[in-house]
Amino acid sequence: MLKPHIAKELRAIVGDNWVMDTPEDCLAYSYDATPLYQSLPDGVAVPGTAEEVAAIVKVCARENIKIVSRGSGSNLSAGTVPVEGGLVIVLTRLNQILEIDQDNLTTTFQPGVITANLHREVEKMGLFYPPDPGSMNISTLGGNIAECAGGLRGLKYGVTKDYIMGLQAVLPNGEILRTGGKSAKDVAGYDLTKLLVGSEGTLAIITEATAKLIPLPETKRTMLAMFRDLTGSARAVSRIIAERIIPATLEFLDNPTIRVVEDFARIGLPTDMGAILMIEQDGPEAVVERDIQKIAEICRKEGAVEVKVADSLEEGAKLMQARRFALSALARVRPTTILEDATVPRARLAEMVEQINVIAKKYNVEICTFGHAGDGNLHPTCMTDERDKEEIHRVEQAFEEIFLAAIKLGGTITGEHGVGAAKMNYLSLKVGETGIEVMKSLKRAIDPQGIMNPGKLFARDTRRRVVVSNVEQDHHAHGNGCGCNEHTAS
Amino acid sequence: MLKPHIAKELRAIVGDNWVMDTPEDCLAYSYDATPLYQSLPDGVAVPGTAEEVAAIVKVCARENIKIVSRGSGSNLSAGTVPVEGGLVIVLTRLNQILEIDQDNLTTTFQPGVITANLHREVEKMGLFYPPDPGSMNISTLGGNIAECAGGLRGLKYGVTKDYIMGLQAVLPNGEILRTGGKSAKDVAGYDLTKLLVGSEGTLAIITEATAKLIPLPETKRTMLAMFRDLTGSARAVSRIIAERIIPATLEFLDNPTIRVVEDFARIGLPTDMGAILMIEQDGPEAVVERDIQKIAEICRKEGAVEVKVADSLEEGAKLMQARRFALSALARVRPTTILEDATVPRARLAEMVEQINVIAKKYNVEICTFGHAGDGNLHPTCMTDERDKEEIHRVEQAFEEIFLAAIKLGGTITGEHGVGAAKMNYLSLKVGETGIEVMKSLKRAIDPQGIMNPGKLFARDTRRRVVVSNVEQDHHAHGNGCGCNEHTAS
Repeated sequence: MLKPHIAKELRAIVGDNWVMDTPEDCLAYSYDATPLYQSLPDGVAVPGTAEEVAAIVKVCARENIKIVSRGSGSNLSAGTVPVEGGLVIVLTRLNQILEIDQDNLTTTFQPGVITANLHREVEKMGLFYPPDPGSMNISTLGGNIAECAGGLRGLKYGVTKDYIMGLQAVLPNGEILRTGGKSAKDVAGYDLTKLLVGSEGTLAIITEATAKLIPLPETKRTMLAMFRDLTGSARAVSRIIAERIIPATLEFLDNPTIRVVEDFARIGLPTDMGAILMIEQDGPEAVVERDIQKIAEICRKEGAVEVKVADSLEEGAKLMQARRFALSALARVRPTTILEDATVPRARLAEMVEQINVIAKKYNVEICTFGHAGDGNLHPTCMTDERDKEEIHRVEQAFEEIFLAAIKLGGTITGEHGVGAAKMNYLSLKVGETGIEVMKSLKRAIDPQGIMNPGKLFARDTRRRVVVSNVEQDHHAHGNGCGCNEHTAS
Repeated sequence: MLKPHIAKELRAIVGDNWVMDTPEDCLAYSYDATPLYQSLPDGVAVPGTAEEVAAIVKVCARENIKIVSRGSGSNLSAGTVPVEGGLVIVLTRLNQILEIDQDNLTTTFQPGVITANLHREVEKMGLFYPPDPGSMNISTLGGNIAECAGGLRGLKYGVTKDYIMGLQAVLPNGEILRTGGKSAKDVAGYDLTKLLVGSEGTLAIITEATAKLIPLPETKRTMLAMFRDLTGSARAVSRIIAERIIPATLEFLDNPTIRVVEDFARIGLPTDMGAILMIEQDGPEAVVERDIQKIAEICRKEGAVEVKVADSLEEGAKLMQARRFALSALARVRPTTILEDATVPRARLAEMVEQINVIAKKYNVEICTFGHAGDGNLHPTCMTDERDKEEIHRVEQAFEEIFLAAIKLGGTITGEHGVGAAKMNYLSLKVGETGIEVMKSLKRAIDPQGIMNPGKLFARDTRRRVVVSNVEQDHHAHGNGCGCNEHTAS
C-alpha cells in the first residue's frame, strides 16, 4: 500500500480512479509474461498525459519511491516486474496514434498504442512499420521501444531502434526530454534517442515517439522447406545469403518444435523432419517471384525433402501460422514455459542448435528451439514446471550454459527480449566488466537516485562473474528474483 | 611542445618517429577542413595499435593532457581542431580492413581506413557499404563513425549509425571497451555502440569497428530534371515520395550553385534553371527502369522543363559529377567557403531554401544551396573572405538565422557534419536545456576529467541561449574558436 498522503497526492494528479493500491490491484501488476518472477508493487498509477507522468515522477523523486513503467506487460525478461516494490506506472491510457505524416514518412504515437494497431493503420496508407515482435497483438509500442523489440522481419528490415527517430520522455527528476525528430539526418549531440531505445525503463519513461515508415512492399510470397537434418537447413540459410538474397523472413523450427506445433495446430507439418525453414520474401512482384524460385532451388540442392510455395497471400499466412503458433503450442505441454533468446551470428546457427541439444540432454531438460534463422536469433524454449524446484535448478543451469555457448560463438545473451531481472547476472558475459562499468555510470548520470526500474540490468554483486564451474553460487546470487517477493509500503 | 618527460614516455610507447612536437608538426595538425578555426596542439602521436592508443591515453589521463583524436581531418565542424591544445592522436596508421565476412554480411576494420577504399573492397564481392559522405575519397571511417557521417545515399540507405554494429574503443581512462558484435539483434544492456557513433571523439577513441553490409544493388540509373522554379522541384520531391518511391539519391542544386558548377566544370548544365534534381535509383533492373520512368513522369508533371535519363552507368556517373563537383566549384569563387548543413523534414525543403535566400539578402552575403533533397539535408554554402572581419560577422549572423529557421521548421542545426566547435553555441536550440544537461551528464560519466576533445559540443556558458536579437554577445561567446589560438605546453 502507498502511504496515504502519497496516494492522495497521486490521486490529485491523475484522478481518483487512476491510482490503485489494494492488494488485489497490486497483485495484478506483480508479474509480466516471464515465468518464475513475481513481486508486489506498493501501488499503481495510470496517467493520461505526459504531464501527469512528469508530475507523478516528481512526487516519486521527492519521496524516493521506486518506479516501474509498463504497458501490456508482455515482457519476457521480468523487465516490468516491480522486484523492489514501489509504484507501477501503467501507460495504456496514452494510446493515441497522433500523426501519420505521409510527406515525411513518419508516424508519431503514444507509448500505449498496441503494435499491431499501428501496423494496420499505416498499412491502410500503403506504409510499413516493420518491427513485429511475437507479442505484437498485445504488446505496446512503448514496451517495444523500452526493450528494442525485434521480430520476424529483423533480418531484412532491422529492429525497433532502426525505426525510432525521436522521443518524448520523462526523466527521473520529472523533467520532460525531447530527442530527435523527423529529420532522417540529425547529428546534434549524443544520440539520446538510441540510448533510450532498449534501456528497459531504467533511464526514463517514454511518453511519445516518432518513427520512420517505409513504403509497404508491393507483394509477398511464403514458402516452407522441410529438411531431414538440421545442418542441411543451416547450409541452405548460408547459401541464400551467399547468393545475396535477403528474405523478409527466414524462420526455423527444430524437430521437437515441429512435433509440438503439429500436435497443437494440425496444419499438416511432417513430424519426422529435422528442421523446417519458413521463408517469406516481399517487394516488387517480379523480384519476389525470382527470389522465391532461387530460394526453392537452393533449399532443394541443400537437401530439402519438400518445398512448398504458397499460391496466395492467404495460403502464405496459413503456412506462417506454424511459426506464430510455436510458443502457444509449446506452452501447452507443461505448466511452465521459459522462452529464451540467445543469439549468434547467422553462420553459427547450426552449431548453436546442436549445442543447445547437447546441453538439454546433459541437464535432462526438455528444450525446443525455433526462431529467426536469418538473424541468428534463436528461441530455445524449455517446457518445465516451476513447482519442481529441483528441475527448475537444472533448467537454469542449462540456460546458463546456453548463454555461455552463444557468447563463445560470437553471439549475445539476448537478441530481443532484454536483460531485465532475468538475465542481469549474465550481462557481464557479453559486455565485460568495462562495459558494465560504463553502463552503470550512464545509469547513475541520468538516474542518480536509482528510482527508475531498480533491480534490473545490473547484477547486485558487481564483482560476480558467471562461471560454469560455480553454478551454485550463481543461483544463490539471482535467487531473489524467483518466487514471490513481497514488499510493504516504503 | 610536450614536456620532455612526456614526449619520452610517448616515444617509448609508439616509437621515436611517431611522436612529433616541433612547431611545424604542430601547425600541420592545428586545423581541419573547417574555415575560421585553427589552434596549435602541444604534440602529435601516431599510434600503430589499439594497445598503443590505450597506453597513450593512460599517460594523458595521469598527466591531465587533453586529447583530440583524428583521421584525415576532413571534418567540417572544427571537431578535430585542438582548441584547447594538448595531444593530437592521429589514427591513419590503423588502416587495415581486418575482415569481410561474407556469411554474416559484416566487415571489421580499423579507423584509419579511407571510406572509398572500403567501398571498393566490399563491392568487389558484390556487397555494399552505403554511407558515402562527400569527402569519402579522403575521409577515414573512424572519422565517419565519430561524426555519424551521412552522404548522398542517406534517404534510402540511412547513415553511418545504421551500419555500425560493434566497436572497440579506448575510454578516457585508457581501458579498452568492446561493444556490440556481429549479431543483427543484440539488446544486452544500453546501446553503447550507437552512443559512441556521432559522439565526435568526446567520449572515446574508436580503434576498431564492425559494420553491416548489404547486397550490392544489381544496377542503377541516373537522371537529371531541370526546373524553372524551386517550388516545382520541391513539389516533385514530395510527389515522388507520395508515390512510395524511395530513390537511392535525390539531390538538389539551386540556381546560384548551377551557375557556379557549370562555370567550373562545363558539363552543359542550363544556367537559367531555378533548380536541378539529380536522381539515382538502384535495385533490380526491372524495378529501377519502372521507378525512373515514373519519376521522370512526375518531374514533367510538376513542371520540369527537361528530363535527362542517362543511358549508361558511365553517363550516369557523369551526370552525378555536377553534384560531386559542387563544393570544389563553389570553393573557387572566393577565398573562404563555409559549408553548412542545416536540415529540415523533407516536406519543408522549399520553404527552407526560400528562407535561406531571404536571409542571405538581408545580410548581403553570397549563399548557394545544394544538398540532399530526399532527406531534407541542405548545404547552404557561403562564399566569403575570412580576412574581411565585417563580412564574416554578417556571415555568422546569417547562419545563426538559418539554424533558427531550420529549427522552426522542425529540423536540426546539423544533419551530418556534427556540432564540434563550430556549432556548440547552437546545440541548445535543437536539444533544449534539458537535452544539454543530459548530454553533459553522460560526458561527465564517461570522461570525468574532461580530457577527450574538450571545447566541443557544449557552449562554455551553459546558461547562454542563442537569440537573434542578441548577436553581439553570441559572437563574443564563441569568438574563441575563430583565429589562431595558440597554446603552450601544459
